[in-house]
Amino acid sequence: MKVRILVSFKDSVLDPQGQTVKNALHTLGYGAVSEVRQGKVFEIDLEGVSRKDAESLVPEISRRVLANPIIEKFDWEILKGR
Amino acid sequence: MKVRILVSFKDSVLDPQGQTVKNALHTLGYGAVSEVRQGKVFEIDLEGVSRKDAESLVPEISRRVLANPIIEKFDWEILKGR
Repeated sequence: MKVRILVSFKDSVLDPQGQTVKNALHTLGYGAVSEVRQGKVFEIDLEGVSRKDAESLVPEISRRVLANPIIEKFDWEILKGR
Repeated sequence: MKVRILVSFKDSVLDPQGQTVKNALHTLGYGAVSEVRQGKVFEIDLEGVSRKDAESLVPEISRRVLANPIIEKFDWEILKGR
Protein backbone atom coordinates (compact mmCIF):
# COMPACT_ATOMS: atom_id res chain seq x y z
CA MET A 1 0.00 0.00 0.00
CA LYS A 2 1.22 3.50 -0.81
CA VAL A 3 0.14 6.48 1.28
CA ARG A 4 0.73 10.21 0.98
CA ILE A 5 1.05 12.36 4.08
CA LEU A 6 0.95 16.16 3.89
CA VAL A 7 2.48 18.07 6.80
CA SER A 8 2.13 21.84 7.07
CA PHE A 9 2.16 24.54 9.70
CA LYS A 10 -1.10 25.15 11.51
CA ASP A 11 -2.92 28.18 10.14
CA SER A 12 -2.08 30.15 13.28
CA VAL A 13 1.69 29.60 12.81
CA LEU A 14 3.77 31.98 10.70
CA ASP A 15 5.29 30.38 7.60
CA PRO A 16 8.45 32.31 6.67
CA GLN A 17 9.33 29.92 3.81
CA GLY A 18 5.95 30.44 2.22
CA GLN A 19 6.28 34.20 2.68
CA THR A 20 9.68 34.15 0.96
CA VAL A 21 8.27 32.20 -1.98
CA LYS A 22 5.37 34.66 -2.24
CA ASN A 23 7.77 37.62 -2.27
CA ALA A 24 9.90 35.93 -4.94
CA LEU A 25 6.82 35.34 -7.09
CA HIS A 26 5.74 38.98 -6.73
CA THR A 27 9.23 40.15 -7.71
CA LEU A 28 8.97 37.99 -10.83
CA GLY A 29 5.67 39.64 -11.73
CA TYR A 30 3.20 37.02 -10.49
CA GLY A 31 0.96 39.51 -8.70
CA ALA A 32 -2.04 37.17 -8.72
CA VAL A 33 -0.42 35.13 -5.95
CA SER A 34 -2.01 36.34 -2.73
CA GLU A 35 -0.85 33.65 -0.29
CA VAL A 36 1.70 30.81 -0.21
CA ARG A 37 1.99 28.14 2.48
CA GLN A 38 4.80 25.62 2.24
CA GLY A 39 4.85 22.18 3.79
CA LYS A 40 6.29 18.71 3.46
CA VAL A 41 4.95 15.68 1.66
CA PHE A 42 5.89 12.07 2.41
CA GLU A 43 5.04 9.16 0.12
CA ILE A 44 5.41 5.93 2.04
CA ASP A 45 5.19 2.33 0.88
CA LEU A 46 3.77 -0.02 3.51
CA GLU A 47 4.15 -3.76 3.12
CA GLY A 48 1.60 -6.23 4.47
CA VAL A 49 -0.57 -3.52 5.98
CA SER A 50 -4.34 -3.57 5.57
CA ARG A 51 -6.43 -0.44 5.12
CA LYS A 52 -7.71 -0.84 8.65
CA ASP A 53 -4.18 -1.12 10.07
CA ALA A 54 -3.08 1.88 8.01
CA GLU A 55 -5.83 3.97 9.58
CA SER A 56 -4.14 3.68 12.95
CA LEU A 57 -0.51 3.29 11.80
CA VAL A 58 -0.27 6.33 9.53
CA PRO A 59 -1.62 8.88 12.06
CA GLU A 60 0.70 7.35 14.69
CA ILE A 61 3.77 7.67 12.46
CA SER A 62 2.73 11.19 11.49
CA ARG A 63 2.36 12.36 15.07
CA ARG A 64 5.51 10.63 16.36
CA VAL A 65 7.94 11.25 13.53
CA LEU A 66 6.79 13.26 10.55
CA ALA A 67 5.03 16.22 12.15
CA ASN A 68 5.48 18.32 15.25
CA PRO A 69 1.92 18.34 16.61
CA ILE A 70 2.54 21.56 18.55
CA ILE A 71 2.89 23.67 15.40
CA GLU A 72 2.06 21.37 12.49
CA LYS A 73 -1.00 19.60 11.16
CA PHE A 74 -1.11 16.60 8.86
CA ASP A 75 -3.46 15.05 6.41
CA TRP A 76 -3.12 11.73 4.62
CA GLU A 77 -4.63 9.60 1.90
CA ILE A 78 -4.16 6.18 0.39
CA LEU A 79 -2.67 6.44 -3.10
CA LYS A 80 -2.96 2.77 -3.97
CA GLY A 81 -3.53 -0.57 -2.33
CA ARG A 82 -6.34 -2.36 -0.59
CA MET B 1 -8.66 29.96 -6.48
CA LYS B 2 -6.51 27.74 -4.32
CA VAL B 3 -4.05 25.28 -5.84
CA ARG B 4 -1.78 22.63 -4.36
CA ILE B 5 1.58 21.85 -5.96
CA LEU B 6 3.59 18.78 -4.98
CA VAL B 7 7.31 18.85 -5.74
CA SER B 8 9.46 15.77 -5.26
CA PHE B 9 12.68 14.29 -6.57
CA LYS B 10 12.44 12.37 -9.81
CA ASP B 11 12.36 8.62 -9.20
CA SER B 12 15.93 8.31 -10.55
CA VAL B 13 17.30 10.80 -7.98
CA LEU B 14 18.44 9.64 -4.55
CA ASP B 15 16.38 11.05 -1.67
CA PRO B 16 18.58 11.15 1.46
CA GLN B 17 15.88 12.85 3.58
CA GLY B 18 13.41 10.10 2.75
CA GLN B 19 16.06 7.47 3.50
CA THR B 20 16.74 9.05 6.89
CA VAL B 21 13.04 9.06 7.75
CA LYS B 22 12.77 5.41 6.69
CA ASN B 23 15.72 4.47 8.92
CA ALA B 24 14.20 6.38 11.85
CA LEU B 25 10.88 4.57 11.37
CA HIS B 26 12.64 1.17 11.28
CA THR B 27 14.54 2.04 14.47
CA LEU B 28 11.21 2.84 16.13
CA GLY B 29 9.84 -0.56 15.11
CA TYR B 30 7.79 0.36 12.04
CA GLY B 31 9.19 -2.45 9.91
CA ALA B 32 6.25 -2.36 7.49
CA VAL B 33 7.67 0.83 5.97
CA SER B 34 9.53 -0.27 2.84
CA GLU B 35 10.13 3.08 1.13
CA VAL B 36 9.88 6.78 1.99
CA ARG B 37 10.17 9.67 -0.46
CA GLN B 38 10.05 13.21 0.88
CA GLY B 39 9.06 16.29 -1.05
CA LYS B 40 7.60 19.77 -0.73
CA VAL B 41 4.03 20.94 -0.94
CA PHE B 42 2.91 24.48 -1.76
CA GLU B 43 -0.64 25.72 -1.27
CA ILE B 44 -1.10 28.92 -3.24
CA ASP B 45 -4.04 31.34 -3.36
CA LEU B 46 -4.47 32.97 -6.76
CA GLU B 47 -6.69 36.03 -7.13
CA GLY B 48 -8.61 36.80 -10.30
CA VAL B 49 -7.23 33.77 -12.13
CA SER B 50 -9.52 31.57 -14.22
CA ARG B 51 -9.11 27.81 -14.41
CA LYS B 52 -7.80 28.21 -17.96
CA ASP B 53 -5.20 30.79 -16.87
CA ALA B 54 -4.18 28.59 -13.94
CA GLU B 55 -3.46 25.74 -16.33
CA SER B 56 -0.62 27.75 -17.85
CA LEU B 57 0.34 29.86 -14.81
CA VAL B 58 0.81 27.08 -12.25
CA PRO B 59 3.15 24.92 -14.36
CA GLU B 60 5.14 28.07 -15.26
CA ILE B 61 5.55 29.06 -11.59
CA SER B 62 6.41 25.48 -10.70
CA ARG B 63 9.13 25.19 -13.33
CA ARG B 64 10.60 28.67 -12.73
CA VAL B 65 10.46 28.92 -8.95
CA LEU B 66 9.14 25.97 -6.97
CA ALA B 67 10.93 23.02 -8.55
CA ASN B 68 14.32 22.38 -10.09
CA PRO B 69 13.29 20.62 -13.32
CA ILE B 70 16.69 18.93 -13.62
CA ILE B 71 16.13 16.76 -10.56
CA GLU B 72 12.53 17.37 -9.46
CA LYS B 73 9.08 16.66 -10.80
CA PHE B 74 5.86 18.40 -9.87
CA ASP B 75 2.19 17.68 -9.88
CA TRP B 76 -0.65 20.07 -9.11
CA GLU B 77 -4.38 20.22 -8.53
CA ILE B 78 -7.04 22.83 -7.92
CA LEU B 79 -8.30 22.66 -4.33
CA LYS B 80 -11.11 25.15 -4.74
CA GLY B 81 -12.31 27.83 -7.11
CA ARG B 82 -13.71 27.97 -10.62
